[in-house]
Amino acid sequence: MNLEPPRGMRDFFPEDMIIRNWIFDIWRKCAERSAFQQYDVCVVENRELFIRKAGEEVVDQIYAFEDKSNRELALRPEMTPSLARLIISKGRALPLPAKWFGIFQCFRYERTVRGRKREHYQWNLDIVGEKEVSAEAEVLRTCLSSIEAFGLSSDIVKVRIGSRQLLQELLEKLSFNQNHFMDACMVLDKKGKVSDDVLKDLLVEKDVSTEDIDKLFKVLEINSIEDAEKIVGDSSTALNDIIRLLTLMDASGFKDYFVFDVAVIRGLAYYTGIVFEAFDVKGRHRAIFGGGRYDKLLESLGGESQPCVGLGFGDVVIYELLKDENLLPVEKSSVDLMIAYMDESSELLAVKAASLCRKNGINVSLGLQSQKPKKIFTNANKIGSKFVFLIGSKEAELNSGNLKDLNSGDQEVILVTDLSQKVKESLEKQ
Amino acid sequence: MNLEPPRGMRDFFPEDMIIRNWIFDIWRKCAERSAFQQYDVCVVENRELFIRKAGEEVVDQIYAFEDKSNRELALRPEMTPSLARLIISKGRALPLPAKWFGIFQCFRYERTVRGRKREHYQWNLDIVGEKEVSAEAEVLRTCLSSIEAFGLSSDIVKVRIGSRQLLQELLEKLSFNQNHFMDACMVLDKKGKVSDDVLKDLLVEKDVSTEDIDKLFKVLEINSIEDAEKIVGDSSTALNDIIRLLTLMDASGFKDYFVFDVAVIRGLAYYTGIVFEAFDVKGRHRAIFGGGRYDKLLESLGGESQPCVGLGFGDVVIYELLKDENLLPVEKSSVDLMIAYMDESSELLAVKAASLCRKNGINVSLGLQSQKPKKIFTNANKIGSKFVFLIGSKEAELNSGNLKDLNSGDQEVILVTDLSQKVKESLEKQ
Repeated sequence: MNLEPPRGMRDFFPEDMIIRNWIFDIWRKCAERSAFQQYDVCVVENRELFIRKAGEEVVDQIYAFEDKSNRELALRPEMTPSLARLIISKGRALPLPAKWFGIFQCFRYERTVRGRKREHYQWNLDIVGEKEVSAEAEVLRTCLSSIEAFGLSSDIVKVRIGSRQLLQELLEKLSFNQNHFMDACMVLDKKGKVSDDVLKDLLVEKDVSTEDIDKLFKVLEINSIEDAEKIVGDSSTALNDIIRLLTLMDASGFKDYFVFDVAVIRGLAYYTGIVFEAFDVKGRHRAIFGGGRYDKLLESLGGESQPCVGLGFGDVVIYELLKDENLLPVEKSSVDLMIAYMDESSELLAVKAASLCRKNGINVSLGLQSQKPKKIFTNANKIGSKFVFLIGSKEAELNSGNLKDLNSGDQEVILVTDLSQKVKESLEKQ
Repeated sequence: MNLEPPRGMRDFFPEDMIIRNWIFDIWRKCAERSAFQQYDVCVVENRELFIRKAGEEVVDQIYAFEDKSNRELALRPEMTPSLARLIISKGRALPLPAKWFGIFQCFRYERTVRGRKREHYQWNLDIVGEKEVSAEAEVLRTCLSSIEAFGLSSDIVKVRIGSRQLLQELLEKLSFNQNHFMDACMVLDKKGKVSDDVLKDLLVEKDVSTEDIDKLFKVLEINSIEDAEKIVGDSSTALNDIIRLLTLMDASGFKDYFVFDVAVIRGLAYYTGIVFEAFDVKGRHRAIFGGGRYDKLLESLGGESQPCVGLGFGDVVIYELLKDENLLPVEKSSVDLMIAYMDESSELLAVKAASLCRKNGINVSLGLQSQKPKKIFTNANKIGSKFVFLIGSKEAELNSGNLKDLNSGDQEVILVTDLSQKVKESLEKQ
């Protein structure tokens, strides 16, 4: 019997799950603080939903299979098409703008990269039906509030912000052949991951002319909003949207996170406007989160045209970064009280004590057999319980037991009926 | 573009998700109250893990597929084999007894049944390494605490309890051919779903003799512990375990839920001892939850022998039952406060107000455009916000806005800097 999970998939033992839950809870809490509504769809989707022809990596890496009736299915590689499916199916019944979120396992079959996972969980925030840059601001401030809840700051994380529309305007001004714009985007997404020479080769493969390649690399040298403005002028909507977004992020207290970067593109074909990517400043990891505006996707899937902004934030990179920064939680469990007994005859009393305490909101680990005190306290320390209530044979005769506070070492004999009140009071004080 | 999810799969729109989260949160809370530790594995598993030869439905209904390297994979139909894989892989490093839980999506490809889902979520509680019936008691009391948290009671839900070991002892006393015991179990699991005549035909198909079929049906007439004791005697471990379990459930305040039923078997081959199934008293639904002892599974998968008890509780039947009983939550969202503005020039002030409130733990829906008051209050009522803070142009000049309590109708003009404190106080009073 193979004890490993399938290649590229992860097991989460309880010690891993404490950390995953901590990350997911922060995501969920931040989304709810900003009044995003949670949705979900099945991890199995209709394959056709994901098929696009822009030459994206994501489409090549779909986990595809057929069911027993030869339906073409897929384990989703990303969430946005499923979100679009739901939004379109709701039609005009859906009040807009809609702010939706979820935490979704996504799959990518990457054949070549060793050690790379084939699944990850991803926090998605999307706003549908808002054309103003206030939508980008809302997903970004919600996302950055999670960055701060994780204990990170703008000293550690930066968000590179660009705009496909701005890039297009810049290239237009230089008379770049616009038929190759999407090709340029797909290649540019690899910038920083491969050398510029490789980028140039990839562009040549896509039949981009040497002249156009030079124009593209000239545009990539732009490294400030001011320089961009010199080319596109001060009436460029694309540029003014970026400026407005930075003003809004300033009002939310997040301005220090942002760096203008004309080369930020993202690998998905459907982005149409502002795009962004967060990285750790030391450059140790892949993108922490990324997203942008996709105003044409719903239309392309047969729905009514709707302006949309979305963001995806994976669980793998943030975990690595938080580990590097020593910011992962150290909690062992959420057990408040361990109830144990030394003689079999005390089992029913222990059961009653546990039931009373649990009903009063105390997390109780109940011994399932009589045990020796030494083993009981070893276990209590191992699981990080705050209190131990130990019923010896003498105490049992008086319906009582010995309550020990493992922090202070204080102990006293109390009635089973007083246990829950006593522990609750002590927990509230802590 | 097909707007439906794949056949048999569910979409969860925000209004569905509120209910699903409510159910999952109760499950998680109850598991933590009883100090179960959460774990998870990928929904994609190695197919071989699920293959058994006992003729179980679950094995015939596996969603099987191959990845691009022809690995035989499966969408898990049940969780216990994955749990066993994790437990075995931990080996002796795992402190026992281990109490683990999770909420898992499981898939079954049921070709014939119309309207039946092909996926559901299932709450699993398992205890590994405890041979005493205290383990059955612990999973059952944890599970029943969720039944009561849902607002249900023993008037609505009953747990039928039996024992494979007891059934075997009873049949032995009648000289039933023990080679057909597992066949009998697999057929008996259909009792109540199909007529007794169909059961008999199925047994004949499995080459069970007419005499043995009569013996089996004679045993099924036993309807009390006393009658069972008349056949197996008062020293039967199987029977004494059931009696002890009922005593333990009594000490936890759950005795009224239990009904002894010698015919409860469960459809999974790996159960070895006590088995149980919960049903609604009115008989409207399939089993609410079910489980039992499986002391041989780890061994059969190549691990060290360990006594185990487990339980699975699906999200579909409980949803239907709670709907019937009018016990589903009616909450629309968790939004506390809607912040809106009437002039574009007030956007930055609204953004600041929202940021301050969110930092203080208030769930804020922030307007993404200037809006007319009528639309603002319509939206606030639709999403169930408790307060509205509306910034008009005059208030904006003084860094203030109008705070309205949508319950009482009270309103007052306050500074943006006082908003968070004011709302927090009012929320605490409510």
